[in-house]
Amino acid sequence: MSKNTVNILAERYASKEMNQIWGAEGRILLERDYWIAVVKAQKSLGIDIPAEAIEAYESVKDQVNLQSIQEREAVTRHDVKARIEEFCALAGHEHIHKGLTSRDLTENVEQLQILRGLELIRIKAMASLIKLAEKAEEWSKLVLTARTHNVPAQLTTFGKRLAMFGEDLFCAVRELDRIIDNYPVRGLKGPVGTQMDLMTLFGGDAEKVAHMEDAILEHLGVGSVLETVGQVYPRSLDFEVVSVFVRLASGPSSFAKTLRIMAGHELASEGFAKGQVGSSAMPHKMNSRSCERLNGFAVILSGYLTMASGLAGDQWNEGDVSCSVVRRVFLPDSFFAIDGLLDTFITILNQMEVFPGMIEQENNRYGPFLATTTILMEAVKNGAGREGAYDAIKSHAVAAVKDLRSGAISQNDLVKRLGADERLGLDEATIERLVKDAQGLTGMAQKQVEQFCERVHSEVAVFDEAKNYSPGAIL
Amino acid sequence: MSKNTVNILAERYASKEMNQIWGAEGRILLERDYWIAVVKAQKSLGIDIPAEAIEAYESVKDQVNLQSIQEREAVTRHDVKARIEEFCALAGHEHIHKGLTSRDLTENVEQLQILRGLELIRIKAMASLIKLAEKAEEWSKLVLTARTHNVPAQLTTFGKRLAMFGEDLFCAVRELDRIIDNYPVRGLKGPVGTQMDLMTLFGGDAEKVAHMEDAILEHLGVGSVLETVGQVYPRSLDFEVVSVFVRLASGPSSFAKTLRIMAGHELASEGFAKGQVGSSAMPHKMNSRSCERLNGFAVILSGYLTMASGLAGDQWNEGDVSCSVVRRVFLPDSFFAIDGLLDTFITILNQMEVFPGMIEQENNRYGPFLATTTILMEAVKNGAGREGAYDAIKSHAVAAVKDLRSGAISQNDLVKRLGADERLGLDEATIERLVKDAQGLTGMAQKQVEQFCERVHSEVAVFDEAKNYSPGAIL
Amino acid sequence: MSKNTVNILAERYASKEMNQIWGAEGRILLERDYWIAVVKAQKSLGIDIPAEAIEAYESVKDQVNLQSIQEREAVTRHDVKARIEEFCALAGHEHIHKGLTSRDLTENVEQLQILRGLELIRIKAMASLIKLAEKAEEWSKLVLTARTHNVPAQLTTFGKRLAMFGEDLFCAVRELDRIIDNYPVRGLKGPVGTQMDLMTLFGGDAEKVAHMEDAILEHLGVGSVLETVGQVYPRSLDFEVVSVFVRLASGPSSFAKTLRIMAGHELASEGFAKGQVGSSAMPHKMNSRSCERLNGFAVILSGYLTMASGLAGDQWNEGDVSCSVVRRVFLPDSFFAIDGLLDTFITILNQMEVFPGMIEQENNRYGPFLATTTILMEAVKNGAGREGAYDAIKSHAVAAVKDLRSGAISQNDLVKRLGADERLGLDEATIERLVKDAQGLTGMAQKQVEQFCERVHSEVAVFDEAKNYSPGAIL
Amino acid sequence: MSKNTVNILAERYASKEMNQIWGAEGRILLERDYWIAVVKAQKSLGIDIPAEAIEAYESVKDQVNLQSIQEREAVTRHDVKARIEEFCALAGHEHIHKGLTSRDLTENVEQLQILRGLELIRIKAMASLIKLAEKAEEWSKLVLTARTHNVPAQLTTFGKRLAMFGEDLFCAVRELDRIIDNYPVRGLKGPVGTQMDLMTLFGGDAEKVAHMEDAILEHLGVGSVLETVGQVYPRSLDFEVVSVFVRLASGPSSFAKTLRIMAGHELASEGFAKGQVGSSAMPHKMNSRSCERLNGFAVILSGYLTMASGLAGDQWNEGDVSCSVVRRVFLPDSFFAIDGLLDTFITILNQMEVFPGMIEQENNRYGPFLATTTILMEAVKNGAGREGAYDAIKSHAVAAVKDLRSGAISQNDLVKRLGADERLGLDEATIERLVKDAQGLTGMAQKQVEQFCERVHSEVAVFDEAKNYSPGAIL
Repeated sequence: MSKNTVNILAERYASKEMNQIWGAEGRILLERDYWIAVVKAQKSLGIDIPAEAIEAYESVKDQVNLQSIQEREAVTRHDVKARIEEFCALAGHEHIHKGLTSRDLTENVEQLQILRGLELIRIKAMASLIKLAEKAEEWSKLVLTARTHNVPAQLTTFGKRLAMFGEDLFCAVRELDRIIDNYPVRGLKGPVGTQMDLMTLFGGDAEKVAHMEDAILEHLGVGSVLETVGQVYPRSLDFEVVSVFVRLASGPSSFAKTLRIMAGHELASEGFAKGQVGSSAMPHKMNSRSCERLNGFAVILSGYLTMASGLAGDQWNEGDVSCSVVRRVFLPDSFFAIDGLLDTFITILNQMEVFPGMIEQENNRYGPFLATTTILMEAVKNGAGREGAYDAIKSHAVAAVKDLRSGAISQNDLVKRLGADERLGLDEATIERLVKDAQGLTGMAQKQVEQFCERVHSEVAVFDEAKNYSPGAIL
Repeated sequence: MSKNTVNILAERYASKEMNQIWGAEGRILLERDYWIAVVKAQKSLGIDIPAEAIEAYESVKDQVNLQSIQEREAVTRHDVKARIEEFCALAGHEHIHKGLTSRDLTENVEQLQILRGLELIRIKAMASLIKLAEKAEEWSKLVLTARTHNVPAQLTTFGKRLAMFGEDLFCAVRELDRIIDNYPVRGLKGPVGTQMDLMTLFGGDAEKVAHMEDAILEHLGVGSVLETVGQVYPRSLDFEVVSVFVRLASGPSSFAKTLRIMAGHELASEGFAKGQVGSSAMPHKMNSRSCERLNGFAVILSGYLTMASGLAGDQWNEGDVSCSVVRRVFLPDSFFAIDGLLDTFITILNQMEVFPGMIEQENNRYGPFLATTTILMEAVKNGAGREGAYDAIKSHAVAAVKDLRSGAISQNDLVKRLGADERLGLDEATIERLVKDAQGLTGMAQKQVEQFCERVHSEVAVFDEAKNYSPGAIL
Repeated sequence: MSKNTVNILAERYASKEMNQIWGAEGRILLERDYWIAVVKAQKSLGIDIPAEAIEAYESVKDQVNLQSIQEREAVTRHDVKARIEEFCALAGHEHIHKGLTSRDLTENVEQLQILRGLELIRIKAMASLIKLAEKAEEWSKLVLTARTHNVPAQLTTFGKRLAMFGEDLFCAVRELDRIIDNYPVRGLKGPVGTQMDLMTLFGGDAEKVAHMEDAILEHLGVGSVLETVGQVYPRSLDFEVVSVFVRLASGPSSFAKTLRIMAGHELASEGFAKGQVGSSAMPHKMNSRSCERLNGFAVILSGYLTMASGLAGDQWNEGDVSCSVVRRVFLPDSFFAIDGLLDTFITILNQMEVFPGMIEQENNRYGPFLATTTILMEAVKNGAGREGAYDAIKSHAVAAVKDLRSGAISQNDLVKRLGADERLGLDEATIERLVKDAQGLTGMAQKQVEQFCERVHSEVAVFDEAKNYSPGAIL
Repeated sequence: MSKNTVNILAERYASKEMNQIWGAEGRILLERDYWIAVVKAQKSLGIDIPAEAIEAYESVKDQVNLQSIQEREAVTRHDVKARIEEFCALAGHEHIHKGLTSRDLTENVEQLQILRGLELIRIKAMASLIKLAEKAEEWSKLVLTARTHNVPAQLTTFGKRLAMFGEDLFCAVRELDRIIDNYPVRGLKGPVGTQMDLMTLFGGDAEKVAHMEDAILEHLGVGSVLETVGQVYPRSLDFEVVSVFVRLASGPSSFAKTLRIMAGHELASEGFAKGQVGSSAMPHKMNSRSCERLNGFAVILSGYLTMASGLAGDQWNEGDVSCSVVRRVFLPDSFFAIDGLLDTFITILNQMEVFPGMIEQENNRYGPFLATTTILMEAVKNGAGREGAYDAIKSHAVAAVKDLRSGAISQNDLVKRLGADERLGLDEATIERLVKDAQGLTGMAQKQVEQFCERVHSEVAVFDEAKNYSPGAIL
C-alpha cells in the first residue's frame, strides 16, 4: 500500500536523531510507554488491572509492525484504535486506554515529540554558538572592510562580524531555553477538557483524577500542565515553536548570505568537504552551495510559519481537526528543516576558508577613502582652511575612483594625489602614515568579540553534549 | 542509509497517480527518456553517436535501482553525475549528457513533472465542477435560509449556494487552463543561458543549436520556450503554480467551512464512507472530518505559497541554488496537497447528506422575520400608517425573538402576534399567506443554477477523463 | 505635498494612545528628548557644549512643524539630516548628533517606540484577561453543550469555554512580559558597530564611551543593550514582536469564531453598542460584526508576520536598508492591528449577550444522546446483556435522530423509546433521571474556571492601569 | 477626530495617480457616479424618478466634504448610510440606492478601483519593459563575467543579463493583461445574491433586472460579470490581484539584488539623482538605496499576499465581513507598494551607471580560468595526453588562485604558467590567443537580447502611455 515517496527533508537533510523522534516507529514506542505509564498509575490508584497484563505490555512494547497496524487502520478507519488493537493483540490483554479519549494520548505524545525535538535543537544551537565563538576568537584581529549597503563603510574585524551574527543567534537560543523550560502539556482532560471521563472512572474522586494526571506529567518529564483546555491544546503553542525556529535561523542565515557575498569577492569561502575538491576542473569556482542551502532552509521555515499561524486562533468551540493534516506536515518538517539548517551551519563554520591576502587587498584599496575624514581633520588642525581642504580631498577622491574604475590605474593612488596638493599642507609620508594608522582603527571590535565569547562560554558551560556535538557529513 | 520517514502528504492523502509523477522512480524514467531524446536529436544533427549506444540506453532505461544510484551519489556528491554514471553503466556506453549542463536536464524534467501534475489537477478540478453542477441541479429548488454574518438574511436555494462556491472554482480552473496552455520551459541554454556549450558542440552552427532545442521541446510536448534565461527559469513560474492551487482551493474551502457550519445545525452532513457508521455509538455525532481536512489542505497551501514567494525575485546574477532545497519541498508537496484536497472535495460531494426536514424547520423559524418587510409594505398599502405599522412589527418581532430565546415559546408565533395587532390592519390568515408566499421568493436563484450548470457542461465537454473521474477511498 | 491618504488601521481602529506613539509628531518629540539626553551626557563627560545650548534645545523641543521638516528633506534628501537642521535652526545652536551616525539615533528611538507600544499592549492584554475572568466567573455554572468538530460532544460550562480561550491568551501575555522585561536596544555603536566614532570623539577613552552608552540606556529606561551589533539591531527582534502579537491574537480570535458560531445558533450574541439596536427592522439579525473584524485583525497580523520573517536573516554584511521601507509599514501597522484587536475584544466581552434559554433547549435536544454511555452502563449493571443493550440504544438513537431531522418529531423522545424497550430493562422514569443527572456532569469545569480566575487575579494584581482600562467606543 | 497618521506607502512611495484612485475623495466620486448611473438606468426602466432629482445629484456630485460624512457615520455607525445621507442632503432628493443593498454599491466600486489601479500598473510595467529593452540594447555587446552561485562561471553580456530579468517581468505582464481583460465584477445581486430585491423593485420582471445590471456593467466599462455570487464576490479574485503583483515584482527584485552585488564589485551602480552626489564626502560610497528599497517592496507584497490568501476560501455561507478590515488594508496598500516598486525600478534604470573598465578587469582576472576547458581541448588536439594535460592545468590553476588570494601576485598569470609547462605542448602566445578568443564567446547572448527587444516593442506598440511614461522624482 505504501507509495514509497520519501520525506525529502527527513531523508536528505535531517539527522538520524531527528528522524527517530518523528519517525512512525519512534512515535509508536512513545505511545506504548505512555500507555504503560497510564495503566501503572491507574493500578496504583485502585483500578483493577492485573500485574501480569502490565508485564505483558512491557514485554511486547518493542515489537513494532507498521504493516500490521496499517492493515488494522484500513478496517477501523481510525488510527488510534488501530494502534490500541495492535498493542493489545500483541500483549494478549485489553487494559490500556481506559477512561482516555484519543486526544489524551495523541496530544501529550506529540508534545513529547516536540519537547524532545526542541532539546535536540538546543544542543545543536549551542554547538553552533560554541563554534561561532571559536571562529570569532580565531579571527578577532583580522581587520576587514566593513560594508553597509554592500559598499565599504569603515573597518571592523572578521571576528566581530562573526560575533555580530552570533549575538542574533544568542538571543534566539535564550528564547528557546525559555520555551523548553516552561512548555506546558495538555494532560488528561477528556474529550472536551472537563476530565469528566476520568471523574467517572475514579467514581467522582477529584483527588485521584489529579494524582492520575500528575503521574503522567512525571512520566513525560514536564513540570507544566494546561488547566482549562478543551479537546486540544492551543495551537498557538505550535506557532511558538516554529516561530523560535525562524529566530534561530536568522543569525545563521544572515551569516550565510554574507559569506556568499564574501565568496564572490574571494575574501572567504565555505570550503569543501574532504575529497570534494578533486572533482572540479575550475579551482576558482568554489560554489557556496551549503550557504545557499542554509538560506533555503530559512525560506522553508517561513512557509511552515505561515501554516502554523494559519492554525493559531482558528479553533472552533472545544476543538476540531482542521489543524490535524496541517500539523502532520509542519511539525515534523519544520523540525527537520531547522535540524538540517543547524547541521549545515556548523559544517560551514568547520570548513570555512578565509583569505587574509584578499582581505588585505580590499583594505588597501578602500583604506585611503575610509581615512579621508581623519585626513581632513589633520589638515585643518595643521592650519589648512576647512573648505579648501574639503574640496581638495573630494576632487582627488572622485578622480581616483574614476581612474580605478576605468582601469587607468590598478592601485589606489589617492595618498599620492593628496600629498601633492598644497591646499592640504600635508606631505605624502604624513598622509601615508595617517592611512596606515587608520587601518588599525576598529574601535571596540576586539573587546566586543571577547565579551561575546565569554557569554557563550558561561552559557554553555553546563551543556556537555553541545561541546561535543559534531554533525555527520552533509550532502 | 534510508531513514524511512515517509512523506505524509504523499502517503496518506495524495493519489497514486500524483505519487508516480513526483516519485524518485518516475523522475528517473523521465530523465532517461529525456537523455535518449537528446542523443537521438544530436545524432540526427551530425554528432557522432553509434546507433547501438542509443539502443543500449533504450533497452535498459526501465531498470531503476535507487539503492545503486544513492551509493554513487555518496561517492561523487553530485546527484546528476550519479544518475548519469548509473545509466551509462547499465547501457555500457557513455554518450548521454553531451554539451549539456546539469540544469539543461533538471530544469526541463522538473518542468515536465509540473506540467503533468497540472494536467492531472485539471482533470480533478473539472471533475469537481461536474460533481458540483450535478449536486447544484439536484438541490436547485430546495429553499434554504441564506445567511450573511452567519445569521439568517434572506432565502436562497441550496443549489444556488453550491453554484456560488462553484463559480469561484470555475474562475480558478480557467486560470489553470491558461497556465497549462502557455507554460514555457527553459530549454537547452547551458550554464549561464547563452547556449555557448551547444554552440561549441555544433561548431558554432546556431541553426543546429536551434534545431536541437526544438527537438527537445517536441519531446517534452510543450509549445513555449523561454528565450533569455540564465542558469534557471524564473522562480516566479513556480510561484504561479502554487498560486493557482490557492485559487483552486478557495471555492472548495469556503464550501467546506459552510458545510461544517450547516452540520452544526444538522441541515446537512458530509456523510460517511460505507461501513463507517457502524463504529459510533453516538449516531448524532457525524463529524465533518473530511471538510475539516479540506480546510487544512488550504492552510498547507498558503504555507507553500509563502515558500514560493520567498524564491520569486531572489535570483542572484545568472542563478544560485538557494532555491533548490525549497523547491524539493514545496513543488511535490503542494501538488500532493491540492491533489488530496480535490479528491477529498469530490468524495464529500459524493457522500454529502442533506436534511430537508431540518432546513424547513429553519425556514419556518426565520420565515416570519424575513417577511417583515413585505408585511410592512402590505399593511401600508392597506391603509395603515407607516410609522405605526413599523413600530408594531418591530415590537412584536423583538418580543417573539425574546420569547424564543428564553424558551418561553418553542415555535415562532410572530404571525399570530401581528395578526392580533390593530395597527397593522391585517388578519392572521393574510399575514400567514404573506409569509408563505415569501417562502418561495428566491429571486433568480434557480436561473443562476441553470446558467452555472450550462457553463460547466460546455466547458468540460471535451474532457472525458474528468467526466469519468472518481477518486479512490480516502482515509 | 501631502497626498492625504490616511492610514486606515491608525485612523479607524487604533486608539489615540497608539497613534501618539507612532505618529510623526510623537516620534520627533522622542528624538529630541534623545538628542538632549545625548548632549547632556556628552557635556558631563567633558565634551565642550555650552549650557545655554542645551537650554535652548530644551526650550524649543515641543515646537514641531512637520511641514518645515518636509521642506528641508526635499532639499537634503535625507530625513535625519532634515530633522537635525530643523531642531538646530529652532534652537539657534549646532551641538546635537555629535559623534553619532543616523542609526545611533533612529534604531534606539524606534526601539523606544516599540517598547512603549508593547507596554500599552500589555495593559490591554491584561485588561482582556481581567474581563475574560470576570465573564468566566459570571457564567461558570451555565451548562453548555460542548462541541468538537462543531457537533455536540459532551457537556461543559460557558465559563469554562471562556477560560479555555483565556488560558491561550494567558500564555501569550507571559511571553509578552518576557519580551518587555528583556528587550535589548542597540545603543551607540556607530556606522558599523565598532563605536569607532565615539572612540574618536572621546579621544580613545573606552571608559567614557561606555559611560556615554550607559547614560543613554538610562534615558531610554531599558536595562539591556546589544553588544556586538553592526549598523542595525537584528531584525529577528522585530519578528519576535509581531510574533507575540500573533500569539496574543490566538485566544481572542478562537473566541470570536466560536461566538460567531454561537450567534448562528442564537445561543449568544456579541450584542450591540448603545443606540445601535434601533436601526434594524430585523431584530433577529444581530450580526457579529465586531467578532468578524477581530478575526480580520488576526489575518492582518499574519501578513505583517510574513513581512517580518522576510527580514529576519536577510542582513548583508554590517547592514543594509532593504528592511527600511518594510519596517516603516509593518511596525506601526502591526501595533495598530493588535491594538484594535484587543480594544475590539474587550468591547465584545462588555457587550456580549448570552441566551440561557436557547442553551438549555440545545442541552435538552442533545442531552439524551450524550447520556447514552451512562444508560448503557446502568443497563448492564442492572443485568441487561451488553450486546443487546448496545443494539437497542443504537437503533433507537438512530431513529430519534432521523425523526428529529425529518421534522416527524420536534422534541427529542429518545428517553421514551428507550424506556419502552425491554432489552434495556430500565423504565422511562429511571432513564429520565439518568439523563437529568448527566445534565449536571461537567466534571472539573467549575474548578478549572476558579483556577483560571485566581491566576489572572494574582498576575494582574500590580497592573492598576489594566484594572481600570476601558476602550473608547469602536466603530 | 482625525488622528493624522499618514499611510506611509501612499505618502512617501506611491504616485499621485495611485493615491487618487484609492483616496477617500476619489472613492466618493466613483460612488456618486455609480449611483447616478443606477438612477438613470432605473428611470429608463420605468421606475418613477424625477429628472430634476437626477440633475440635482449631478450638480452636487463633486462637493465632497469628508468631515461632514464622518460626522454622519459617528451617528449612524454605518459608513454607506452616512454617504447616502450626505449625497441626498446635498442634492435635496432621496432617490439613490433604491432596491440596492450596500454590497451592490461597495463591491462594484471597489472592483472599479481595482481595475483602474491595474490599468495604471500595466502602464508602469510596460514602461519598465521598454526601459529595460532600451538598456539591454545599449549594453548588448558589453561582455561580462556571468556568475552562478555568485562566482564566475562563463561569459555573458550585460544586455543579456538585463533581458534575463526582463523576460521574467514579461511573463508577469502577460498575466496582468489577462486579468485586466477578463476581470468580472459582482454586479447587482442583492443581499444574498439572488437579485430578489431588484425583482421586487421591478415587479418580478426578470428581463428588466437583467437590463438594469447590463446598464451598470456598461457604466463600469467591464465586460464580465459574476453570475452566482452571494453577498460578496469571491475573495480569490483579490488574491489573484496581489498574486500578479508578486509576479511583477520578481524580475525587478532579482535585478535589484544583482545590481546591489554588482555595486559591491564596483561593476555598476544605481547612480544618483541629480544634486545628490554633492552631499557625500566619500565618493566611493554609492549606496544602492533604491535597489534595497525595491527589494523591500517585494517583501511587503509577500505580506499582503499572506493577507489575501488568508481570505480566499474563508467565506461562511453567503458571506461575512471578516474580510472587510483586511481588504481595507491590503488592497490599497499592495497597489501603493507595486506602484512605488515600479517607479523605483524605472528610476534606477534611468540613473544606473555601468563601469566597463571594472567589468573588463574582472573579465581579465577570471578569463584564463574560464578558458581552461578550451585550452585542455586544444592541448589534446595538439597531441598532449589528456590526463597529463588535465593535471598540469589543474595544478597551475590552483597555484595561481592561491597566489592571487595571498596577494603574492596581483594579476592572474595562469597563461604564463601554462605556457611554460611542457606537458601541454602549447606556448604562451598560443594560450594567450585562446584566452583572448574565449573572451568573445558569449554564444547566443546578443541574439537573445534582440529577440527580447523585438517582443517588447511589438507588445507595447499600442500602449502610448507606457512609451511616454516617466515617474516623478523618488525620495
